[in-house]
Amino acid sequence: MSCHQVTEATTQDSVSPQVLVADCGASLRSANPARDRIQTYFNNLQNRICQALENVDGTAHFCEHEWSYKGGGGGKTRILQGGTVFEKAGVNFSAIQGALPAAIATKMRISDAPFFATGISRVLHPRSPMVPIVHMNLRYFEQGEGKCWFGGGADLTPCYPFLEDARHFHKNLQVACNKHDASYYARFKEWCDQYFLIKHRNETRGVGGIFFDHLHTDPPADFAFVREVGEAFLTAYLPIVEARKGMPFGEQEKKFQLIRRARYVEFNLLYDRGTAFGLETQGRVESIFMSLPPEASWPYDWAPEPGSHEAELSRFLVPQDWVGAEDAAGRLCQQ
Amino acid sequence: MSCHQVTEATTQDSVSPQVLVADCGASLRSANPARDRIQTYFNNLQNRICQALENVDGTAHFCEHEWSYKGGGGGKTRILQGGTVFEKAGVNFSAIQGALPAAIATKMRISDAPFFATGISRVLHPRSPMVPIVHMNLRYFEQGEGKCWFGGGADLTPCYPFLEDARHFHKNLQVACNKHDASYYARFKEWCDQYFLIKHRNETRGVGGIFFDHLHTDPPADFAFVREVGEAFLTAYLPIVEARKGMPFGEQEKKFQLIRRARYVEFNLLYDRGTAFGLETQGRVESIFMSLPPEASWPYDWAPEPGSHEAELSRFLVPQDWVGAEDAAGRLCQQ
Repeated sequence: MSCHQVTEATTQDSVSPQVLVADCGASLRSANPARDRIQTYFNNLQNRICQALENVDGTAHFCEHEWSYKGGGGGKTRILQGGTVFEKAGVNFSAIQGALPAAIATKMRISDAPFFATGISRVLHPRSPMVPIVHMNLRYFEQGEGKCWFGGGADLTPCYPFLEDARHFHKNLQVACNKHDASYYARFKEWCDQYFLIKHRNETRGVGGIFFDHLHTDPPADFAFVREVGEAFLTAYLPIVEARKGMPFGEQEKKFQLIRRARYVEFNLLYDRGTAFGLETQGRVESIFMSLPPEASWPYDWAPEPGSHEAELSRFLVPQDWVGAEDAAGRLCQQ
Repeated sequence: MSCHQVTEATTQDSVSPQVLVADCGASLRSANPARDRIQTYFNNLQNRICQALENVDGTAHFCEHEWSYKGGGGGKTRILQGGTVFEKAGVNFSAIQGALPAAIATKMRISDAPFFATGISRVLHPRSPMVPIVHMNLRYFEQGEGKCWFGGGADLTPCYPFLEDARHFHKNLQVACNKHDASYYARFKEWCDQYFLIKHRNETRGVGGIFFDHLHTDPPADFAFVREVGEAFLTAYLPIVEARKGMPFGEQEKKFQLIRRARYVEFNLLYDRGTAFGLETQGRVESIFMSLPPEASWPYDWAPEPGSHEAELSRFLVPQDWVGAEDAAGRLCQQ
């Protein structure tokens, strides 16, 4: 591995929750304290998440690549590979600025004026097929004068269907949303189901979560919400890892995992806006593709045996109410 | 495997080389003998290629899925998996008609009038990393009244660089081209280099070959050229298979093959027009994705050891004159 190991991680978030984002949209050329505070938060969140993931993994460590962007700024890509729990885990922080190619501006439904973007994204590919893949990203975007917004999302992609995992993940996101706006969870959950749809297969990428973009109600409130989602990540995901990581699996389960990971590749290369944005703005390819799985498999026309555990997954790949869902025994799950 | 094994294959091509394509562009609704002759040729070519590939493989057989297309027509997808020589080999024949979604029409730079398309495509993923991946496709397209054209191409994607293989492949395509138009090889070779470029990595998919589209000089002559390319496939590729299939390889070479196959996935999902056309027209997903490798791997930021055999490949992933190329000892290769 050519990157250097991250030797220390900040365990305290240095940004106060009361931070104001009052000067959003100030000129891209001048110093922008709001922007600085947001990227400091994302940067610290990266440290804390990496530390927590190393603790869970128990054996492997993150390596870091610092990179610079042609238009200005850059990022830090951290990768843990070959761990006990995580086969490939990527946590990327970036704060870049530049011009937006017309094609990607059209795709993002924004103008092609110069932009500033900072964000954190995480995609974790566990070794065990019993532990779901997870993705989360949070971002802040500025363009031209006076335009700024937040976006983000989190979604869970199990290979093997465990109702209580989907419910736990959604419940945690719902609680985070409800602290800020009673309408957020329902709206952002539906947006997630629509966004993470593998159109050509008419199946969702996984059990969803939340997705939001162009959030610009009141900048300080929006930033507080984004922080809430950022903080919810570990509580939404780690208990699932703890519950599943010790479950036995064999060759059949590993084979199924590789097939499901191939669906993840299909979504990311064909539909994901973040991937398209990264490639179109000539971002660092290996940082963009940290989201791709360590291994994937495309056997021709593979289908699970009817009645098998693998066949049960298909019931999970359609949008549904996870929070109110019943467990395997038909009981309404208790939080 | 749920598809049925192909038990017999036609070894004779029933279409005479002198066939005329005089009624190109007749109404899509009426019987069209030219169209029938072209699709009969593609159909027979599928039979002959599958038979030849089974002979080379020695152990595995093709299975066939017949499918129908919502707008009319359909196809036959043949797949050989788990063979001695080929890990996954797909040979697809289709003859479909329908309406073209506006988005894909714009991408293909044609109108969104109803279309008829027939073609054959082949993507072979060998088991040995020493044997290159090969792709070839030939197609005939009609749209509206009076518009018809041929397209096609072939390209070779080695994991390990053997100059004589690239030269043999190109030389055979050059000979086929030269029988029809002295300008074809140079033009179509350059077009191939431009088309099979993995833009975000600024590397070609492999050592190229030829690519052409919207060919409509004189329909009978164009069809004769397309047949020439179709017939050249086996002579361009099979001697390379024979030369490489017995070479030893180990875990390191297999690992490298999976990384190179991942590049193939990146190209096909991000840039390939045939894949985009198939998905946008809601074609059969498994037939479209027959081109994807049985397994692929995305380790983060992998790079070969300087001076290794793997590192040598990068010299091959830039457009160059293969036919006049020198061999490893610096001698001009003799055909």
